[in-house]
Amino acid sequence: MTGATPPHPTPSSRRGGQVEGARTAVQPAARGQGVAALLAEIADVGTDRFRGGYSRHGFDRAERELREWFAGQAAARGLAVRTDRNGNLWAWWGEPGPGAVATGSHLDSVPGGGAFDGPLGVASALAAVDTLRQRDFRPSRPVAVVVFAEEEGGRFGVPCLGSRLMTGAIDAGTARGLRDQDGTSLADAVRAAGMDPARLGRDDESLALLGSFVELHVEQGRQLDRRPERTPVALASSILAHGRWRLTFRGEGNHAGSTAVTERRDPMIPAATTVLAARRALAGTEARATVGRIVPKPGGTNVIASSVDMWLDARAVSTSDTRGLVGEIVAAAGEAAEAEGCAVEVREESFGDTVLFDPTLRDELADRLGGVPALPTGAGHDAGILAARVPTAMLFVRNPTGISHAPAEYAEPEDCEAGVAALARVLEHLAG
Amino acid sequence: MTGATPPHPTPSSRRGGQVEGARTAVQPAARGQGVAALLAEIADVGTDRFRGGYSRHGFDRAERELREWFAGQAAARGLAVRTDRNGNLWAWWGEPGPGAVATGSHLDSVPGGGAFDGPLGVASALAAVDTLRQRDFRPSRPVAVVVFAEEEGGRFGVPCLGSRLMTGAIDAGTARGLRDQDGTSLADAVRAAGMDPARLGRDDESLALLGSFVELHVEQGRQLDRRPERTPVALASSILAHGRWRLTFRGEGNHAGSTAVTERRDPMIPAATTVLAARRALAGTEARATVGRIVPKPGGTNVIASSVDMWLDARAVSTSDTRGLVGEIVAAAGEAAEAEGCAVEVREESFGDTVLFDPTLRDELADRLGGVPALPTGAGHDAGILAARVPTAMLFVRNPTGISHAPAEYAEPEDCEAGVAALARVLEHLAG
Repeated sequence: MTGATPPHPTPSSRRGGQVEGARTAVQPAARGQGVAALLAEIADVGTDRFRGGYSRHGFDRAERELREWFAGQAAARGLAVRTDRNGNLWAWWGEPGPGAVATGSHLDSVPGGGAFDGPLGVASALAAVDTLRQRDFRPSRPVAVVVFAEEEGGRFGVPCLGSRLMTGAIDAGTARGLRDQDGTSLADAVRAAGMDPARLGRDDESLALLGSFVELHVEQGRQLDRRPERTPVALASSILAHGRWRLTFRGEGNHAGSTAVTERRDPMIPAATTVLAARRALAGTEARATVGRIVPKPGGTNVIASSVDMWLDARAVSTSDTRGLVGEIVAAAGEAAEAEGCAVEVREESFGDTVLFDPTLRDELADRLGGVPALPTGAGHDAGILAARVPTAMLFVRNPTGISHAPAEYAEPEDCEAGVAALARVLEHLAG
Repeated sequence: MTGATPPHPTPSSRRGGQVEGARTAVQPAARGQGVAALLAEIADVGTDRFRGGYSRHGFDRAERELREWFAGQAAARGLAVRTDRNGNLWAWWGEPGPGAVATGSHLDSVPGGGAFDGPLGVASALAAVDTLRQRDFRPSRPVAVVVFAEEEGGRFGVPCLGSRLMTGAIDAGTARGLRDQDGTSLADAVRAAGMDPARLGRDDESLALLGSFVELHVEQGRQLDRRPERTPVALASSILAHGRWRLTFRGEGNHAGSTAVTERRDPMIPAATTVLAARRALAGTEARATVGRIVPKPGGTNVIASSVDMWLDARAVSTSDTRGLVGEIVAAAGEAAEAEGCAVEVREESFGDTVLFDPTLRDELADRLGGVPALPTGAGHDAGILAARVPTAMLFVRNPTGISHAPAEYAEPEDCEAGVAALARVLEHLAG
């Protein structure tokens, strides 16, 4: 386990499965089933013994179990659940219709991720509905709680896959052909989940229902925690432009003991050079470039690799800055490959322009929430995809570790409840 | 597929399973079942669709199938097969007894390995027995064909595991505790194979039977192929000192988008620096240092790794040169880790001193074979382990690609037959 601290005690009957090292906000809420208790219910789904934390990926066993859990939660609240043509789940409070207010997030995780990224937004949406009903609030517009599919791209490589498909930000044919590490296509995976892959794609009918979308999310960073007043909740102002590139270096597989250094064409050399070039390219900028995944083939200790697959995640303030950064790194990769007698092939797996959340909506909600701050983020979200089509806002909940995409990701139970209260006020305002 | 060329046509009835890209010497021998036909019989066992070539590892399904095949071949020749306490197989021509002449190699492979490294030595030993019998040769000493277990260390990390256990070069308790990637211990793996893990360890009784050991092996390099006369066979003179080290870099897992460069403790950075330091340390030397295996955890595209496991294979002419080389690389790893706020832990997984094969035996055999050359190699072998206890020699068969540990590894059928003929002459001399 890495960066992990002991979890809070679990009140749930499912305690036996508590994931090693992942922290969950599990104190039962003062009134009824708060967000902490909801998260505790799924604390044992999709735990990853090898990496620690959770591995829950689009349409896999764990994510399907979470979908069933969500459907059960919706049914218990009398919310009608529909699966849209792209596998996103919608639980409706009131008849689906135009001008609806949607809120939610996703239930999948990165490999070895934390308990909050995704599920906190879904659980908070359910808890906010409970809060509003306890106040006898009657929405004048339909309200929907949504679960987007494969937000992290942990299985098929493209983040925000469900919202990208819905908005047409990814072509349906391209998406159907995406493959996971075992070679299973998205088409086959959705078919196995009981859906029709031919129906994947832009869904203007569902989009036309949405008057606004609000996603609550654990903060990924410590901007809130570092404020002297330790504000529990913020709004989002913007998301960095970002994308993913797969670099394949090809050399010549050979014996690690008998091949002289002068005879080597070792693709690990340009791959390592590129990791360092990516770091150097960040000097003096606010950009990000990360290599978190690298797979040499065949991957034997006493074998010079024949090829190395490496994924580059790059983000910067503007689209052109991001493209410039990636261009610089790819040029370094090409030079290093050539120097070693290797070839490099680069494929863009996804790209998203800079997102500026609707400033009118943001100011309106900030005012409603008593002047909470608005923060930029480097993390992509379904809200960033929806923002191109629907007035969209995001709420962040304070993360005292600042860590995300790792088991140490955390939010205090009282901050989670503050998030629910803020989301309830936002829904009340938008659907009232 | 990498570095692969179309296989020769397969005469075997098992043709359907021909492995993609791996080359096998499959022309049936002029007389009876030559080495090419023997290799063709196992051409579909343990093929690796992901990496290409073969993945056959100690006590796994593929290696167990190969052991059964070997037992069947021995039985067909009336050779009695015994499994020693360490899982090595011995097929005896004549009653086991002191002064025996043993020959053989191994049947396991590196991940995604070629068809020859290991199986050529086993098949050639069987074919050499056939050759001698066709000549009505009657050995005056017992002859044994041996298959050593887990020579590549592809599953449990320690190369020449069967011969190291037999000679006491690895402690039995240490060996029992070795674990594969799935966490299965060697003790459990041998138990699953029907053996008693308590009996693993130094086997002086078996060693006492051996008067000499000769291992035939495909050459790993092009020393023979580059000679003007294209000699098909050579003897071995020496093996580089070599070992394996596992470096674990620990940093802080976090979000690839929201974590500023100044806040990162990314273990991929010192890992990449170490890959390049290993290459730089070879400048102007005959040493080898290779990183062919690297595993970041959790291994997500949008996740800064929390830790990176990296394996270093290092070899040099002397033990002290090898230790000096590794010391230099480990020092660079430590500095790079510190600069990134990471820690690094280094574990030696195996080490073997320089091997000089018995010069008297070598000269005697060179003379017998009409003055074939004696070549040094950087590759480790069971013969290198046995050499510490028994007069030992090695025969190399020309490899026109020079490639090994990869699907492009190759030996021409006529060179393989020349290898069998040479081995038969050697056995005739030693057991006559």
